Amino acid sequence: MSSEIFLKAIDQEIVRTQYGDNPVELYEPIEYLMSLGGKRMRPLLTVIATNIFSDDWEHAIKPAIGVEVFHNFTLMHDDIMDAAPLRRGKPTVHEKWDKNVAILSGDVMLVCAYELMTAVEDGIFKQVIRRFNRTAAEVCEGQQLDMNFASRNDVTEEEYIDMIRLKTSVLLGFALELGGMIANAGETNIKLLYEIGTNVGIGFQLKDDILDVYGDPEKFGKQVGGDIIENKKTFLLIEALAQAKGKPEEKELAHWLSVQEFDKNEKVKAVTAIYDSLGIKQLAENKMNEFFSKGLSDLEKLAATAERKKPLLDLIEMLIEREN
Amino acid sequence: MSSEIFLKAIDQEIVRTQYGDNPVELYEPIEYLMSLGGKRMRPLLTVIATNIFSDDWEHAIKPAIGVEVFHNFTLMHDDIMDAAPLRRGKPTVHEKWDKNVAILSGDVMLVCAYELMTAVEDGIFKQVIRRFNRTAAEVCEGQQLDMNFASRNDVTEEEYIDMIRLKTSVLLGFALELGGMIANAGETNIKLLYEIGTNVGIGFQLKDDILDVYGDPEKFGKQVGGDIIENKKTFLLIEALAQAKGKPEEKELAHWLSVQEFDKNEKVKAVTAIYDSLGIKQLAENKMNEFFSKGLSDLEKLAATAERKKPLLDLIEMLIEREN
Repeated sequence: MSSEIFLKAIDQEIVRTQYGDNPVELYEPIEYLMSLGGKRMRPLLTVIATNIFSDDWEHAIKPAIGVEVFHNFTLMHDDIMDAAPLRRGKPTVHEKWDKNVAILSGDVMLVCAYELMTAVEDGIFKQVIRRFNRTAAEVCEGQQLDMNFASRNDVTEEEYIDMIRLKTSVLLGFALELGGMIANAGETNIKLLYEIGTNVGIGFQLKDDILDVYGDPEKFGKQVGGDIIENKKTFLLIEALAQAKGKPEEKELAHWLSVQEFDKNEKVKAVTAIYDSLGIKQLAENKMNEFFSKGLSDLEKLAATAERKKPLLDLIEMLIEREN
Repeated sequence: MSSEIFLKAIDQEIVRTQYGDNPVELYEPIEYLMSLGGKRMRPLLTVIATNIFSDDWEHAIKPAIGVEVFHNFTLMHDDIMDAAPLRRGKPTVHEKWDKNVAILSGDVMLVCAYELMTAVEDGIFKQVIRRFNRTAAEVCEGQQLDMNFASRNDVTEEEYIDMIRLKTSVLLGFALELGGMIANAGETNIKLLYEIGTNVGIGFQLKDDILDVYGDPEKFGKQVGGDIIENKKTFLLIEALAQAKGKPEEKELAHWLSVQEFDKNEKVKAVTAIYDSLGIKQLAENKMNEFFSKGLSDLEKLAATAERKKPLLDLIEMLIEREN
């Protein structure tokens, strides 16, 4: 089976999924956000993981969509907290409707995610919900840490990696783990799947940080340098702050972080030049490769044939190579 | 067993419950809100229901607290949406911290409620989660309808009863139903317990509406007339708008609903006088008694001894008689 077939089945089921009708303010935003698309990477991971150990991958579709609904719930609420005007190029729910609608519709969306999880067999249901609960709490912890970091200038590399592990990568870990549980892949493989997902997830986020500065403007899709303009605490900025200590770049970086009025292009160019002179890109790529490598090495340990594992290998390689 | 013993066990377990540690912005608000007290009516209903059919009521304590945590989650988010400064006489979470903390901490609280539900036996777990999902979605639907009603002047009695059924009473129904599921009380009894909870819950909310206007200021605890001051669409106001049609009270009521600057006491006195001349109190009491009676009649049908059912009967009678 190939990822295209899985993705088609996922998209068809998303269109079929009924969240509720009345009142419309509660359910329209869910349909809206789910219809904006995205890579559907999380449900794809679930279905791919099931298919490694079982032919009955269709069994995994509904709970896989539960993971995607959960992910979109976090986007709906994060966008309120971050006061984001756009999501996937369209108005965010709190902009299109209002904040109260985005709060309450998000709450229902989280409940819908739990309801989609009920599609798994009774025998694994409690284990699935326990792992889902742990993951969901961790994703919220990651979001809170990310918000806390915005007002700090002493975030360490270790703290940053832990934050993205919670905010982004444990859900990729859970997506794969869920697929393993559905396929009854056994404890060792299920644990490996989780590790693969979290490590690849950290690599994925580090790639995001790198692309935001060093992406090809024609392929990236977003404005290159967006994180620099906003002083976003990415791996690159944290590493630059650490590496610049006692060097001329320290003062220069402090200037660009504190200046209130600036030309956007000039700031992006200047901060990128600081990153370049400190060798930040290489440091970030080394760290990223470290996590992708851990993921790939755990993938080898999974007790299945190379053929069975190929869709997951392909997906990870695609994430390593991606340019947007 | 008596309700005092159940309540003591519930309070002890609430103190013992660990929601999480880090980051503190996420978990302190949960501890804070849970420590503000309240009647603990929902967990008490669960434990009382279990005890009707089983001696092992202690088994019901953790999931019962899950219902209380869910209820407090709805309060945390509703207070943001209603811009409420106080809850149980203390600053609301979004006032004491900020809105983002209240959104995210509330999200984790909902996850904690699901985690507490995992304390039920594997055999009933999926049924419990399905019913909990349905209830949780309905409570959100009720809150959205309540917000929608604020800008409407044509809400019917039927729409209002349906809104309070969703916003308030289905959770009381679920609390009792959950206790029945934990005790393996059988489908008929579980269904009856749900019906008792929802009907008593509607009676409970109607009592709230009546007390807000006709409560004894020395016993009520809140400002009598608070709903009138805020033009809150209660059963009394909706009924008064309907009954006043074509009578002199119609214009008078419209005046008090539209006037921007007013003396609070004068408005409360004037609107109460309109209610009095239209016989609204009696109409509301009749409706309230109708729902309490349904609840009491279903309680009789429950397949258990009068002795076993006494704590639930006592609790319902307490809710009927309460003055605050």
